[in-house]
Amino acid sequence: MRISQIAPLAETVPPKLYGGTERVVSWLTEELVAQGHDVTLFAAGGSKTAAKLDTGCDQGLRLQGIHDQTATNLVMLDKVKLLADQFDIIHCHIDVLQYPLFQDLSHKLITTLHGRLDKTDIWPVYRAYPHMPLISISNRQREPMPPGLNWLATVYHGLPTGLCPYNPTGGDYLAFLGRISPEKRPDRAIEIAKRAGVKLKIAAKIDTADRAYFKEMIEPMLNHPLIEFIGEIDDSRKCAFLGNALALLFPIDWCEPFGLVMIEAMSAGTPVIAWRNGSVTEVISDGVGGIIVDSMDMAVEAVARIKALDRASVRSYFESRFTEKHMANNYAAAYEKHLSRQGAPPMLAAAE
Amino acid sequence: MRISQIAPLAETVPPKLYGGTERVVSWLTEELVAQGHDVTLFAAGGSKTAAKLDTGCDQGLRLQGIHDQTATNLVMLDKVKLLADQFDIIHCHIDVLQYPLFQDLSHKLITTLHGRLDKTDIWPVYRAYPHMPLISISNRQREPMPPGLNWLATVYHGLPTGLCPYNPTGGDYLAFLGRISPEKRPDRAIEIAKRAGVKLKIAAKIDTADRAYFKEMIEPMLNHPLIEFIGEIDDSRKCAFLGNALALLFPIDWCEPFGLVMIEAMSAGTPVIAWRNGSVTEVISDGVGGIIVDSMDMAVEAVARIKALDRASVRSYFESRFTEKHMANNYAAAYEKHLSRQGAPPMLAAAE
Repeated sequence: MRISQIAPLAETVPPKLYGGTERVVSWLTEELVAQGHDVTLFAAGGSKTAAKLDTGCDQGLRLQGIHDQTATNLVMLDKVKLLADQFDIIHCHIDVLQYPLFQDLSHKLITTLHGRLDKTDIWPVYRAYPHMPLISISNRQREPMPPGLNWLATVYHGLPTGLCPYNPTGGDYLAFLGRISPEKRPDRAIEIAKRAGVKLKIAAKIDTADRAYFKEMIEPMLNHPLIEFIGEIDDSRKCAFLGNALALLFPIDWCEPFGLVMIEAMSAGTPVIAWRNGSVTEVISDGVGGIIVDSMDMAVEAVARIKALDRASVRSYFESRFTEKHMANNYAAAYEKHLSRQGAPPMLAAAE
Repeated sequence: MRISQIAPLAETVPPKLYGGTERVVSWLTEELVAQGHDVTLFAAGGSKTAAKLDTGCDQGLRLQGIHDQTATNLVMLDKVKLLADQFDIIHCHIDVLQYPLFQDLSHKLITTLHGRLDKTDIWPVYRAYPHMPLISISNRQREPMPPGLNWLATVYHGLPTGLCPYNPTGGDYLAFLGRISPEKRPDRAIEIAKRAGVKLKIAAKIDTADRAYFKEMIEPMLNHPLIEFIGEIDDSRKCAFLGNALALLFPIDWCEPFGLVMIEAMSAGTPVIAWRNGSVTEVISDGVGGIIVDSMDMAVEAVARIKALDRASVRSYFESRFTEKHMANNYAAAYEKHLSRQGAPPMLAAAE
């Protein structure tokens, strides 16, 4: 299949630092190429890919200090539109801007929505262009959206199987990884660890917007022999940090659309103790990939029970659902489904 | 002429509170209607106009708490495009989003750029669509932009002549009106007043982003018998505040694209003491509408000289250049010029 992937331009693909979406686009693109598809990646200059690369800007916009990416994205989308004949599928990983421009190309445009969908700011375009084909990254992610949209599929994110290697033994600490912010509830993680009497290591960055929250709410809780605040860690240390843990704590208080860190932990064999919220019930198989809880008491009790979970089974569960191959296969199936719905003959995968 | 005016959706037209652009769009729209044109205003619901009103949303987006207006604007622009045949001219007062969508309609689309143009974030669209016809609100505003753009005209803003009525006597205080922010330099205004030994009244709002600047830099300067901080005032008090002043201080430290407050003051007969920056040399006629300065010494000296300026001449100068009629006539001429450039016969104004 001739596929174009349209990445956000905030970061290169893959990103140098943060950028969950750019990371997922990279894994998907490389796997589609590996499966024999003819892939063109539209992304920031400096991106690295085995696909053909068409750059929308010299380098990732965030590192250039450009916060409003609208103008650059519009120009890239317009270029994609000019080249539309060259592609069977145009797979967009940015949203909102493309709908009016591509409304006559809905037979080949597919958009994956990567963010939270409960902000009413974005709804007008979905009400205006309900026929545009959409893919969610969890079923739960769709819930706040207006009815009557053209949902094609849910495709869960997937990781390269070797990225966070399986660690058969794990370790003795609970891990909290991500960002210090009220909706991630590091305060819950700290309380769980203290009540369970188990070590907690917090590897998290603090954005400017969350500095006051950290100072007032979290920092006063850190002075305890069981709690270690490591600060921000880079990708290379992340997988070891997860793999060496007893469990990942994911005590979120918001409607997480997917939660990459959960599958990174499970890839390493580390089970997840997660609050029932957002995508959690879809990503964690309760009692296999981890334990799903609804309260602090349940979470503390889960820490006591977590050792009983077999790390090999956690890894197997990851391998059965959340690899890059699953993701790419599911996307390829969604592409086929979309094309065949319009009466076009199903495209043969290039590898077949 | 069949004209559509495309307003920002942040506020109604005219706005209930702030919204310089929405205010200008309102004055222009009403004057074009008064001149006999067939005008359709695309704006937020709740807008008031003698033109036909087509609403892009129920009410101004800012008061709904919607900060990202992209989705709503895109849907409105797409609707305008569908109706394009009904208009000879589509006059857009928002920028960036319309260029790819309207690139085949550049023969009837005109965009007024209302903001500062030195932010590189927006340049990609201007580089990509250099043929799109643009109007600047001062010549100086254009300077940072890439070369080779299709500038059609500069059209200065204009006010209804009765909005800020002529006050033949003025008063004994210097006025500072607007927003407390580093680039508006309220600190300079305070220093000028203290050195000149003349009262200063500051009527200014303090945005959240500028709270620290106010606390640290400005508040400590306010405790002085000559300085009075009034805080924010609404439109109904603004013209009296300006009209009762000896002079308006406009000691800006940024590249102001136009500066409505300067013509509001001159409408009331109040001269302006302004720093040579941005549009100032185009809006103030030095020695007539006010005094243009380059330094604190010059500004202090200007306060001593300002009484010599004839308030009636200030008002006459305003009337000769900055009324809503001038603005509407200049826009109508720009519309004609744009249409005639394409070989179309000049449209007759409906009033003729």
